[in-house]
Amino acid sequence: MKYSYSKNLNLDFEEAEEKVRDALLNIGFGVLTEINMRDAFKSKLNLDYRNYKILGACNPNLAHEALYDEELIGILMPCNILVIDNGDKTTKVVFPNAKSLLGITENDKILKLSDKVDDLLNQAFESI
Amino acid sequence: MKYSYSKNLNLDFEEAEEKVRDALLNIGFGVLTEINMRDAFKSKLNLDYRNYKILGACNPNLAHEALYDEELIGILMPCNILVIDNGDKTTKVVFPNAKSLLGITENDKILKLSDKVDDLLNQAFESI
Repeated sequence: MKYSYSKNLNLDFEEAEEKVRDALLNIGFGVLTEINMRDAFKSKLNLDYRNYKILGACNPNLAHEALYDEELIGILMPCNILVIDNGDKTTKVVFPNAKSLLGITENDKILKLSDKVDDLLNQAFESI
Repeated sequence: MKYSYSKNLNLDFEEAEEKVRDALLNIGFGVLTEINMRDAFKSKLNLDYRNYKILGACNPNLAHEALYDEELIGILMPCNILVIDNGDKTTKVVFPNAKSLLGITENDKILKLSDKVDDLLNQAFESI
């Protein structure tokens, strides 16, 4: 099972990010963290890199349920969505395959929950 | 292979978090993101929860190497370290088993890199 799936949008980086955030909000996922690897590499290594954002998204109800079923599941939270500048006025958006990631817990309740997460994430992905 | 390992410290939550951050800095991992699930559950669900921090740590050199080997590895970054209030003046710290998480890429170069990451994380864990 692949751990992610993606598509390219005919949108610039900022527009694509906005579209991704809206789609996540529509399925009840807020963006709690963000990292732009471009900024991290510039400030820490003085290297130039393209815009590559890791958005950490979380649905509070599902997160609460997951923590009840598996106390240390925070190691695998939040769900990361990538927004990557292709450098040609198109932007790649990448979604995680939650079942592939959460499968490493080998906890049946978490596996069931990951189906719910994937249904929602798929819905957001298709809406973009 | 378990996806995490942990220990309890005879320190309160804030002291434990400081110790974890220092240990991570000593191995070249900066904390780029943090989420306290207590705050998230209070603001979004109006539920009381204990202090449960997810610290997103990243070593810029290793991250750069990983992205060179596997463009979409951002789905699995940064490395999450948990700091969890046990409610009895002790605090649990939880480290990820990078090889277990990164193994889902099935990319030999990433697996090799995850050994480096685990060596460093183990070193930090032992120093706490």
